[in-house]
Amino acid sequence: MDSMTYIAMISIIIAGITTGFGTMAPALAEGRSVSAALAALAQQPDASATITRTLFVGLAMIESTAIYCFVVSMILLFANPFWNYYLAQAAGQ
Amino acid sequence: MDSMTYIAMISIIIAGITTGFGTMAPALAEGRSVSAALAALAQQPDASATITRTLFVGLAMIESTAIYCFVVSMILLFANPFWNYYLAQAAGQ
Amino acid sequence: MDSMTYIAMISIIIAGITTGFGTMAPALAEGRSVSAALAALAQQPDASATITRTLFVGLAMIESTAIYCFVVSMILLFANPFWNYYLAQAAGQ
Amino acid sequence: MDSMTYIAMISIIIAGITTGFGTMAPALAEGRSVSAALAALAQQPDASATITRTLFVGLAMIESTAIYCFVVSMILLFANPFWNYYLAQAAGQ
Amino acid sequence: MDSMTYIAMISIIIAGITTGFGTMAPALAEGRSVSAALAALAQQPDASATITRTLFVGLAMIESTAIYCFVVSMILLFANPFWNYYLAQAAGQ
Amino acid sequence: MDSMTYIAMISIIIAGITTGFGTMAPALAEGRSVSAALAALAQQPDASATITRTLFVGLAMIESTAIYCFVVSMILLFANPFWNYYLAQAAGQ
Amino acid sequence: MDSMTYIAMISIIIAGITTGFGTMAPALAEGRSVSAALAALAQQPDASATITRTLFVGLAMIESTAIYCFVVSMILLFANPFWNYYLAQAAGQ
Amino acid sequence: MDSMTYIAMISIIIAGITTGFGTMAPALAEGRSVSAALAALAQQPDASATITRTLFVGLAMIESTAIYCFVVSMILLFANPFWNYYLAQAAGQ
Amino acid sequence: MDSMTYIAMISIIIAGITTGFGTMAPALAEGRSVSAALAALAQQPDASATITRTLFVGLAMIESTAIYCFVVSMILLFANPFWNYYLAQAAGQ
Amino acid sequence: MDSMTYIAMISIIIAGITTGFGTMAPALAEGRSVSAALAALAQQPDASATITRTLFVGLAMIESTAIYCFVVSMILLFANPFWNYYLAQAAGQ
Amino acid sequence: MDSMTYIAMISIIIAGITTGFGTMAPALAEGRSVSAALAALAQQPDASATITRTLFVGLAMIESTAIYCFVVSMILLFANPFWNYYLAQAAGQ
Amino acid sequence: MDSMTYIAMISIIIAGITTGFGTMAPALAEGRSVSAALAALAQQPDASATITRTLFVGLAMIESTAIYCFVVSMILLFANPFWNYYLAQAAGQ
Amino acid sequence: MDSMTYIAMISIIIAGITTGFGTMAPALAEGRSVSAALAALAQQPDASATITRTLFVGLAMIESTAIYCFVVSMILLFANPFWNYYLAQAAGQ
Amino acid sequence: MDSMTYIAMISIIIAGITTGFGTMAPALAEGRSVSAALAALAQQPDASATITRTLFVGLAMIESTAIYCFVVSMILLFANPFWNYYLAQAAGQ
Repeated sequence: MDSMTYIAMISIIIAGITTGFGTMAPALAEGRSVSAALAALAQQPDASATITRTLFVGLAMIESTAIYCFVVSMILLFANPFWNYYLAQAAGQ
Repeated sequence: MDSMTYIAMISIIIAGITTGFGTMAPALAEGRSVSAALAALAQQPDASATITRTLFVGLAMIESTAIYCFVVSMILLFANPFWNYYLAQAAGQ
Repeated sequence: MDSMTYIAMISIIIAGITTGFGTMAPALAEGRSVSAALAALAQQPDASATITRTLFVGLAMIESTAIYCFVVSMILLFANPFWNYYLAQAAGQ
Repeated sequence: MDSMTYIAMISIIIAGITTGFGTMAPALAEGRSVSAALAALAQQPDASATITRTLFVGLAMIESTAIYCFVVSMILLFANPFWNYYLAQAAGQ
Repeated sequence: MDSMTYIAMISIIIAGITTGFGTMAPALAEGRSVSAALAALAQQPDASATITRTLFVGLAMIESTAIYCFVVSMILLFANPFWNYYLAQAAGQ
Repeated sequence: MDSMTYIAMISIIIAGITTGFGTMAPALAEGRSVSAALAALAQQPDASATITRTLFVGLAMIESTAIYCFVVSMILLFANPFWNYYLAQAAGQ
Repeated sequence: MDSMTYIAMISIIIAGITTGFGTMAPALAEGRSVSAALAALAQQPDASATITRTLFVGLAMIESTAIYCFVVSMILLFANPFWNYYLAQAAGQ
Repeated sequence: MDSMTYIAMISIIIAGITTGFGTMAPALAEGRSVSAALAALAQQPDASATITRTLFVGLAMIESTAIYCFVVSMILLFANPFWNYYLAQAAGQ
Repeated sequence: MDSMTYIAMISIIIAGITTGFGTMAPALAEGRSVSAALAALAQQPDASATITRTLFVGLAMIESTAIYCFVVSMILLFANPFWNYYLAQAAGQ
Repeated sequence: MDSMTYIAMISIIIAGITTGFGTMAPALAEGRSVSAALAALAQQPDASATITRTLFVGLAMIESTAIYCFVVSMILLFANPFWNYYLAQAAGQ
Repeated sequence: MDSMTYIAMISIIIAGITTGFGTMAPALAEGRSVSAALAALAQQPDASATITRTLFVGLAMIESTAIYCFVVSMILLFANPFWNYYLAQAAGQ
Repeated sequence: MDSMTYIAMISIIIAGITTGFGTMAPALAEGRSVSAALAALAQQPDASATITRTLFVGLAMIESTAIYCFVVSMILLFANPFWNYYLAQAAGQ
Repeated sequence: MDSMTYIAMISIIIAGITTGFGTMAPALAEGRSVSAALAALAQQPDASATITRTLFVGLAMIESTAIYCFVVSMILLFANPFWNYYLAQAAGQ
Repeated sequence: MDSMTYIAMISIIIAGITTGFGTMAPALAEGRSVSAALAALAQQPDASATITRTLFVGLAMIESTAIYCFVVSMILLFANPFWNYYLAQAAGQ
């Protein structure tokens, strides 16, 4: 088994783990925020405009951490600098 | 055992783990949101329109993280760039 | 032990784990939602129509993550692209 | 030890684990739902019809995830495609 | 050590683990349900008929998951298809 | 070390673990039920007949899961089908 | 190292673990029951006869699971069927 | 390293672990019971006789599980049947 | 496998883990902050200006720790000093 | 490395672990009891005699489990029967 | 693989882990502080000046622990004394 | 590597672990006790004499378990009977 | 790989872990203290001087444990007595 | 690799772990105590003298466990009896 295979295997493993585990916390945090928003709406229906606006800003912030993870996964799968180096090596042989 | 077999094995493992574990947190978060929505409905039945609308937007946001995981699994199973590279290698031999 | 055996073993393992562990969180989340619905019904029996409708939509969303896991398991057992490749290899020998 | 033995061993292990661990969460979720139903009955005895109906629908949904796990175990024990393939190989030798 | 021994060892291990761990969650869930029933009885003694009926239906549902595990253990110990196959092999030698 | 020794060792290990760990959850669940019964008695002493009857039915259900585990341990120690097979093999040699 | 030594070692290990870990949950459950009894006594001193009677029945049930574990340990140390078999083998040599 | 050394090592390890871990749960349970007794005394000082009597019975029951563990440790250190067997073997050589 | 491959593999692994796990806590912390902000808005709608300003400052502080992790990942993937050293070594050979 | 060294190493390890981990639970339990005593004193200062007496009896019971662990450690370090056996062996050589 | 490679690999691993895990607790602690500040603002809007000042001092203290971790990571990546020693060794050869 | 080195290594490891982990629980328990004392002081300032006296007795009891651990560590570092035995052996050679 | 490399590797690993993990608890503890201070300010704004003074003393005490960890890391990186010994050995060769 | 290197490595590892993990619990306990003190101050500002005095005594007691750990680390780094023995051995060669 040569170096390329190791790089490919590691890239697959880490791409999956980064997305699979890295989206856990954002999902839980969004669930918490949505719950709080619903409880707030039930308590103070008149402030629904402020509440939903704050909720969306918060969800966007939280989603950003999930997107960092997804971006790292996509980089590892489709724009992996180490894989490209070895591809170039293999092509240049 | 050649490189292709390793790539295949790793892809199967990670595809399963990414979906199997990555959908845990969204499921829990959706369960929390639905619970909060039901409690909110019980407390303030008149605001049901706002509550269900906020709930659906929230569920969509949370579901998105589950879908990231499912997308990574599907990429690994059916559009795996590393597997395709080795298939091309094997075909070109 | 040849490559096919490894692929078969890994597919069995991951199919079981993905379903066995991946349905945990949906089950817990559904339990939470049903609990919340029952508490909501006890608190506000007049809103039972809205509550059960919201509950069923929520359960459907949560069940979807369990179904992602079950689908991945079924793909691994009965429509596994890597296994099919090796079957074709073995048949073409 | 030949390939068949590995397949058999793995199938036994995964069949047991999938059922043994995969039924944990449904059991806990059903326990939670039943508890909530009993608390709801104690609080609002007049709504017992709606409560028990909602409970049974919820239990059915939760039980479905336990049944997914049991189905995967039964498939692995009695309708295992990989085992059948090797049986056919062994018979065709 | 031949294949039969491995199959026997694995069957024993998994039979024990499936029952030993798989009955944990049902036991806890039944404990929770019984607790809720007792609290409900203390709160609303007049509804004892409805409460105990709902409790027994719930306990039966929860016990079913424990029985799935026990069934899988018994299958592995006394009706194990893989063990039978190797017994037939050994007898046919 | 021959096959019989392995079977004996595994049987001892699993017999101990199944009882040692499998009785944890029933013990905790019974503790919870008894606690709830005592709290219920303190709250509603007049309903002591119904409460203790429900408690004993519940304890019996929960104890049943502990007994499943104990039964599996006893089967493994004193009526182990795999051990008997090898004993018969050894006697028939 | 012969088979007897392995059997002896495993028996010691499992005897210790079964008692050491298997008595954890009963101890905690009894602690919980006693706490609940004391709280009940403080709340309803007039019902002390019913409370202590229910407590003792409950403690007996819980202690039974600890005794299952202790019994298995004693069987492994002093009436171990596998050890006896090998002793008989060694004596008969 | 001969069999006696293994038996000695395993006995030391298990004697320590059984006491070290097996006394954890009783200690916690006793702490909980004492706390409950103190809270009960603060709430109902007139019932101190009943409370302390119930507490001491409960502590005795809980301490019994700790003593099971200590007994097993002492058996392993000073009355170990397996060690005695090997001592007799060594003496009889 | 030469040194460069090890460096590449380790860099991929750590880049994924640092982002995947390092963004968990910030996501949860942001979810908590947003929840608290929503609850505060529901309780005191008049102070919405102060609340949202404090929320945004807090989110920025928390996001900074997620960004530390993302920065380390990016350094490891695209500006890795150790990889560059070995690239220079390889080029200078 | 001879048998004595193994016995010495294992004795050191287990002596440390038994005391280090076995005193955790008593410490926590004593902390809980003291907290409860302080809360009880704050609530019912007139019952301070009964409270402190009950506290000291309880602390003595809990400390006893810590002392079991310390005793086992001291036995292992200074009165270890297995070590003494090998010392006698070595001296008698 | 020579010593330099080991040093490089270890430095990458520890740099990632120190930042990735070491920033978890500060993030959670800041989330808690911000939540408490928001709750305090909602409860006592008039004290907003004192509250936000105390919050910022507290956030700075907490952030300092995250910065310790980031500093250690940066030292390991860009000012690693051990790496420098080996670089000097390699240059001086 | 000779026996002395193993004894030295094991002694260092266990000395560190026993103190490092064994002081965790006492620290937490003391924190809990101090918290309870402060809450009690705030609730009943007049009973400060009784409260602080009870607190100091409790802290002394808890500290004693930490001191057991520290004593074992010091014994292992400076009065280790096994190390002394091997020193005497080495000196007597 | 010679001794120096091992010492260097271990020093890097432990320096990172000590800071990365050792600052977790102080960060959480500071977050808790700041939260309590903010809640106290909201409840009793008039006592802000005493509260902030007590908070700062407390934060200093807590920060001291984080600084112990940082100091140990710095000693390991820049004033490591074992590394210095080997450096002197290497220089003196 | 000779004995000295092992001793040095183990000393570094344990010095780091003892400080890094052993200061966790004191930090958390101090955070809890400070929180309780702040809550007590907010509730009873008049008792601030007693509260802060009790807090400082408590913090000193808790800090003492952290200092035990730090002392063990410093002994291992700078006054390690085993290292000194081997240094003397090496010097005396």
